[in-house]
Parts: sequence; structure tokens; C-alpha cells
Amino acid sequence: MSELEQRLVRLVASVRPASAPAREAARSELDMKTKPRGSLGRLEEIAAGIAAARGTASPGPLRATVVVAAADHGIAAEGVSAYPQEVTAQMLANFATGGAAVCVLAKAAGADLVVVDAGVATALDLEGVRSVPIVRGSANATKGPALTRDDAVRAVLAGADLAEELTLSGTTVLGLGEMGIANTTVAAALAAALLGRDPEALCGPGTGVDVDGVTHKVAVVRAMLAANEPDPADAIGCLAAVGGCEIGFLAGVALGGAARDSVVVLDGFISSVAGLVAASLAPGFTSHAVASHLSPEPGHAIVLERLQLRPVLDLGLRLGEGSGAALALPILAAARDILVEMSTFAAAGVTDTGR
Amino acid sequence: MSELEQRLVRLVASVRPASAPAREAARSELDMKTKPRGSLGRLEEIAAGIAAARGTASPGPLRATVVVAAADHGIAAEGVSAYPQEVTAQMLANFATGGAAVCVLAKAAGADLVVVDAGVATALDLEGVRSVPIVRGSANATKGPALTRDDAVRAVLAGADLAEELTLSGTTVLGLGEMGIANTTVAAALAAALLGRDPEALCGPGTGVDVDGVTHKVAVVRAMLAANEPDPADAIGCLAAVGGCEIGFLAGVALGGAARDSVVVLDGFISSVAGLVAASLAPGFTSHAVASHLSPEPGHAIVLERLQLRPVLDLGLRLGEGSGAALALPILAAARDILVEMSTFAAAGVTDTGR
Repeated sequence: MSELEQRLVRLVASVRPASAPAREAARSELDMKTKPRGSLGRLEEIAAGIAAARGTASPGPLRATVVVAAADHGIAAEGVSAYPQEVTAQMLANFATGGAAVCVLAKAAGADLVVVDAGVATALDLEGVRSVPIVRGSANATKGPALTRDDAVRAVLAGADLAEELTLSGTTVLGLGEMGIANTTVAAALAAALLGRDPEALCGPGTGVDVDGVTHKVAVVRAMLAANEPDPADAIGCLAAVGGCEIGFLAGVALGGAARDSVVVLDGFISSVAGLVAASLAPGFTSHAVASHLSPEPGHAIVLERLQLRPVLDLGLRLGEGSGAALALPILAAARDILVEMSTFAAAGVTDTGR
Repeated sequence: MSELEQRLVRLVASVRPASAPAREAARSELDMKTKPRGSLGRLEEIAAGIAAARGTASPGPLRATVVVAAADHGIAAEGVSAYPQEVTAQMLANFATGGAAVCVLAKAAGADLVVVDAGVATALDLEGVRSVPIVRGSANATKGPALTRDDAVRAVLAGADLAEELTLSGTTVLGLGEMGIANTTVAAALAAALLGRDPEALCGPGTGVDVDGVTHKVAVVRAMLAANEPDPADAIGCLAAVGGCEIGFLAGVALGGAARDSVVVLDGFISSVAGLVAASLAPGFTSHAVASHLSPEPGHAIVLERLQLRPVLDLGLRLGEGSGAALALPILAAARDILVEMSTFAAAGVTDTGR
């Protein structure tokens, strides 16, 4: 086994399921708070999930970082997006200067934002953007693998390295964001490969292609799968086959975050496919994950169902970038506060009828 | 017409629909931001609604106050709640010391909290609680009106006075919260009266009564309506007939807030019925309102449908207190930030394909 593959094996082995005892202790604690049992609904489940991921029923205030990874995709040459490829790099510049939606939403949530060039086609020199390109744009997967197997592993390991760095400096919640023209097509192909589902169920309008555009995406995804015949049991092989660097990178952030007791917050379809890659490699990952929202992109619900995650928000968001993950962060913070800061019946002198 | 009724007429006349030009200007502005058109889904609608309520497409940072109004209800003597009546006063003390859910959630959202005794059965002297009791608990509405007509008007006017005070000192978003043992029964009766709906559709478990308890609530609501025969066209008459003070007070906060260009955030079933009273008096109110969430209490969806408001969150919250309103506040703040702080395609130098 290569050194790269050995590092991956160690990463995967370091991801354990979130703490069931901490989850149970949190549920018991929530039942003593001054409210009818369960009356805060899913906010209580979210709080218990945070406790499980953090490994304690009394987690400290959450510190969130949204990681936005960007990359380009050879498949863009097949005309699958409403936007030209140069928009990936333009949007990285927009992330760097604070003008993009995720910048505004991360700031509103009090979260840090880390922007990563994980493989944009053109070399960039932008202040505030971390440059860890695995390749300068993946290959066109209708003609062969998008990435080499080594590059797919490198992408995952690079993401895990970032997660390690961020958690060591205090981050306890990692939001996953992405940017990459054509990456709904890549995500659909990867989900189809990993889930063994027909591409037609997984392709949608993305940033705004019409019905004919979706039909074309389905055909392109079929061609990507036909050219590579990925094995669903080999997540890294699937990632190498259809790409892309930002998805691999985010899968690594997810694994690295879960290994270090972070809560990992998925955004839309693409980052959820990164979560699917992570879960395919390390099934324990999902107990550290929160699905921030449900996008109208049809593959998203399918992926979340496989991950057995219920989305927190359902607001028709379909932007990506980590925008939905950032928008849900205050709800996670509130859930933690309910668990830790609310009074119990006993402390407040409120009659508890046990309901 | 009495002086009280004249004041009410002036209040109602001061509520105008939110600004349609500001809403349109906000939508145009959102279409120039660096994202595919409409890709932030309902967050964009929320932003446009804030612009409409505030009367400008460039609203300043939102400043939110959650008002929790509490009162007792004679109907509690009919055994409609899982909790004894003294819990109303106990919870006011819990609000005052910061231990209740709404305290924690308002703090998490950076919102102020104002707690009001609008008619608790026992006189209280609690630091941090405003005492404006209309009556010391309403009468049992199965035996006659819960409130006199004058007291119903007084409750509304007292709420409007508070809204005026808060908006004059900078509040631009008013969240509505309530506390009052038995007030889901009161809210169900009031909604049944105003909407002409059968009580069976509007009664639910509240804080936790069982199926027999719900059947009993339905019978009690029928008795409340039979004893008073309220006229659906007379919202104040309905409020007087079945109560209660906190609902009237919150209807006044809603009207007073809308009259002063605030966004008014409804919480669960009970505060939404207060919104229904406000809308029955001044139909222009609803364009200032946001439904923060959908509770499982069956009457809630019916009331929101009549108000034509779509809830922001759907998390199974059924606590009341303003907890859902507080939880949704960061989403409103984020929507405003998207409208005002995000870059346009032109400013960021990002290619706009018009999608």
C-alpha cells in the first residue's frame, strides 16, 4: 500500500461514531428543563446531536468555520452549466473580498470563513484564498477518469489536514461549502456511482439550466459512468472516476472534523455528496453530521435519505457555497445554548407535571 | 363612541399595508447580486418582506425585541391544561431570571426581551417584569364573557403603547411570545370564533394533554362559544367573549409595530391567533408579519393559511413563549444582510448570464 493510501486508512480509522452516552445524557438533561418534555421538537434532537459529536452533554459555546472549497471540472466542456468556467475563479475573488452570499451569511452567524482553491483551472493569487490545488482542473470524465487515484486521495487528505488545523485552533463546527462550475453534474455522477441510482433521479437544474439542459446532464452523467465503470464499494475509485477536487477535499474536511469531535454541517447537494463520500469511507461519520437544509436539486433528498439526515431548514436554497450551512449555524448555536444555559424545573422552582 | 374605542379606531387606521415599491426595489436589487436569480429561495422573499415592512430596499441592521405577554384564564378551572394555573406566575419568575427557553434563545439571537404581566391571576412583584395587568385573570368563558369589551380594548391599546415605546427606542423587529396556562384553549376558541371553523379542527394537545384531554378541550371550546355567541365580524367582541389579556395585548403589539414600520414575527398557535385578531382589525397588518415556524398544534396551520403566511421553520416546536420567534430572528437578520451587504455582479466583476 502506498504512503498516501496508508494515510487515508489511518484517517478513516480515526473516525468513530459520535458518543451515544453523551447523546443520552443530553436528552435526560433536556427533559429536566423548564418546558414540557420534547416541546422544543427538533431543536432538542439537534442539541443532543451536538452533545454526541462533541462527546459531552455540556459542550462549550460553538465556534464555527465554514470551509468553501473550489475547483474546476473538465466536464464543463460538455456544456452542462448555465455559467462559463471562468466564473469559478471570479467567484473565488468574490469570496476573498467578502461580497458573496456565504461571506455575508458566515459573518451574520459569527463564523469564520476559509476559502480554498482546491483545483481551479487557472492559477490564482488572491489574498485570503488558500491555494492547495490538487490539479489545475480535473479531466473530462466522459473520456476517462477525472482524477488519478492518487490525486483523489490527496484531495481527501488535504481536506483532513485543514480540518485538523482548524479544530486545533478552536473550531468545533465545520460548515462545508463549494464552488465549481459544472459541479452539480459531478456530484450527480458521484452519487449515481456510490448509490447505484439512475442518473435521471439525481440530475436537476443546478444553477439554472432548463429541461433540455437537464436531459443533456443526464446523458453526460451516463457517459461519465460508461467511460469509467466505477465500483460503488470503492469510494475513492468513484471519486477518481468522476471527480472532483473540491468534493474530495470536503470529504476530507468532513472526516478530519469528525475524527476531532467536530459537528460537520452539510450544505446543499454537492457538499452532501462529499458527506456521502465520507460516510462511504467511514460510516461513523454520519453521526457527526447535520444536514443544514434541503435544496430543490432532486439528488439532495436522495443523498440525505441515504445518510439518514433530516434537514434543519427547507427554504428552497440552491446556491451552494456553504450558504445554507452558514444560515443554519445560529440554530445549532441556539440548540447548544438550550442544552447548557436553560434552567431546570428544580432550579427555577417551576412545577413539573412530568408531561 | 367611547374614548377607548376612539383610540382603537385611530390605532387600526394607522396600520397600512407594507410598502409594495420597497418590496419590488428589493427584489430587483436581489436579482443583481452575485448568485443565480432566486437561488436563495425563500430567504429572498423574507428579505423583500423586511424591505416592504421597513419601507426601504436598504434597511439598516435589524434590532429585535421579543415581547412575552402573560395572563391567566378563568377557563383553566375546566381542567383543559396539563399544568396547574400557578405555573403561569412561576414561569414569569423564570423569564425574569433568564432561565426560560425564550430568554436563552433571545440572547442567542442578540434580541432584547420584554416580559409583561398582562393579567396574571396573582399580583407579582418581579424585577424585570412589566406589570400592566388588564384584569387579574379573565373570567371563565363557559359562563359568560372572559373580559368586558372595554378590557379587551384596553389590552390591545396597552400592547400598542409598548410597541410604540419600543420602536421609538430603536426596535425594528417585534417577536410575539406568550405564557398563560390554558391559553391554547383560549386561542382555539378565538380562532374558531373569528374563522367560523369547528373547534375540533383547532384544538390540539397544547403542552401535553392526551386524546381524552383534547376531546374535553373541544367540548369546553364549544361551551365557550355557546355561552357567548361571538360575531366573527367583531374581532374585539370575539376577544372579549373568550379572552384573553395576553392575546389582546400581543394583537396590540402587532398593530402598533406594523403602524411604525416594524417587522412583526409570530411564534406559535397562540401568538398567531393574536396576529389573526390584528389582521381582523387591520388587514394591512399581515404584510408586516413573518410566521417564524409551524407548530404541530393543529390550529396553527389553519391560522397561518388564513393569514397567507408561510412559516420559516418547521421544527416541531410547541413551547410558545416566543421561542420559535426568537429562533427565527437570525434568519431575518441574515436575509437583511443579503439584501444590503452582498455584492452585485457588476461590483464584483462576475459574469452574469441572466439565469
